Amino acid sequence: MMPRVFRKESLSIGASLIITGEDGHHFARVLRVRCGEEVAVATPGGTYLAVVQQVFGEEASVTVQIISSLPSHEPQQQVFLLQGLPKGDKLELIIQKCTAVGVAEVLLLKTKRSVVQLDAKKATAKIRRWERIALEAASQAQRDSVPAIHYFDAVGDLERFMASFGKVRVLLLDEAEQVQGIRSAVQGIQSEAENGPIVVAVGPEGGWDDDERIWWHNVMGARSVSLGPRILRTETAGVVAVTAVLYEFGELGG
Amino acid sequence: MMPRVFRKESLSIGASLIITGEDGHHFARVLRVRCGEEVAVATPGGTYLAVVQQVFGEEASVTVQIISSLPSHEPQQQVFLLQGLPKGDKLELIIQKCTAVGVAEVLLLKTKRSVVQLDAKKATAKIRRWERIALEAASQAQRDSVPAIHYFDAVGDLERFMASFGKVRVLLLDEAEQVQGIRSAVQGIQSEAENGPIVVAVGPEGGWDDDERIWWHNVMGARSVSLGPRILRTETAGVVAVTAVLYEFGELGG
Repeated sequence: MMPRVFRKESLSIGASLIITGEDGHHFARVLRVRCGEEVAVATPGGTYLAVVQQVFGEEASVTVQIISSLPSHEPQQQVFLLQGLPKGDKLELIIQKCTAVGVAEVLLLKTKRSVVQLDAKKATAKIRRWERIALEAASQAQRDSVPAIHYFDAVGDLERFMASFGKVRVLLLDEAEQVQGIRSAVQGIQSEAENGPIVVAVGPEGGWDDDERIWWHNVMGARSVSLGPRILRTETAGVVAVTAVLYEFGELGG
Repeated sequence: MMPRVFRKESLSIGASLIITGEDGHHFARVLRVRCGEEVAVATPGGTYLAVVQQVFGEEASVTVQIISSLPSHEPQQQVFLLQGLPKGDKLELIIQKCTAVGVAEVLLLKTKRSVVQLDAKKATAKIRRWERIALEAASQAQRDSVPAIHYFDAVGDLERFMASFGKVRVLLLDEAEQVQGIRSAVQGIQSEAENGPIVVAVGPEGGWDDDERIWWHNVMGARSVSLGPRILRTETAGVVAVTAVLYEFGELGG
């Protein structure tokens, strides 16, 4: 697997780049790349094939030259995961798997039935850890970008955040009776003229509270959907639903 | 969630049933069910709603009476997971997630690139543990049956086993270039007149060996398929592929 580095700046073919810091350490000391070896450099403007020119083992840095463009591995249809904060370390698995499958952003929400308490200080440290997991999963999956991780401790903040994306279509995973199957809901979205992110919203272990359900429907225009008769745990539902949506859009090996 | 017990015998409405052993312990001592409480009894002939009649705490047993039939939660299209034996405890997660999603059977194969060595004695203990995980996941997901776990240390044994199912259609997950997307392969299968299980075959960490690939194609008539441009780890690929196939067949919330 070609080593991969994510950069925030724009780059162009022929440019040289110095890789330092954690990435430099990883390339020079852990992977021990060699001169002439190919690496991938993912940037907001596209992903490039680059070749290692120099390796500085002591400084833990590497210089590479951008050679050519690589095809995009990103889905065209953006799918966000909105996950009600679950217990324990379940989020690590959720973020890892959803990133590999192709989620665009991960939005974490403290819900009424979330047991975990995240104060500001703890949240910052946790989010850094989750960002690291997303980065590693994105690199392993050979993605062109790393999903951002956002934490909201109130629905009002989430609402303001969502407003910046224009028209979002929310699929609210809900075990209540009489909800629509996810497939017909996604096909309904496909038939609309609008585009914009699709948000898959998964509750915590105890599911959604009635007030939350009403908020999702009335404020966010959410459609309640079901993944069928088999009951999935919160840590399984997100990756299965994201897979279903990306599959329907032909983003998963059409 | 309604407590659930899996039984191998046929039952009919009105019948009484004594639940002993591990299940009796679980019901009487762990869940502490009470007289009048509803439980689900899953049998090969269907799943029933039953009501607890007596609880014997000391003997760790419970008697229930079958009241009525419950609707099936099983997919009509059977999907088997064939997993090349992976490292460490990854299989636990694979079996848990695939069972929840709805896999019918789990076939484990020692492949050329499988690092783990399972001798006969170790295999028996491991399989028992995996069966337990499948049982718990099936119960949690409210399934009507528990996927069987089969272990094969050679492709010949696997071939003989598969022959008992008649026409099986194998989707070989393969990262080699120029393979078909899983979606068009599944749609191709749907358009055929035959029915029978679909097998999703996932290699171990190192992927399939060339000889194995040839065996899959020539002996098993496998179609090589891709899950798209993002590379999934072996422990993620199976659940994503099983999800995709069940989704396409409308078995996942159509």
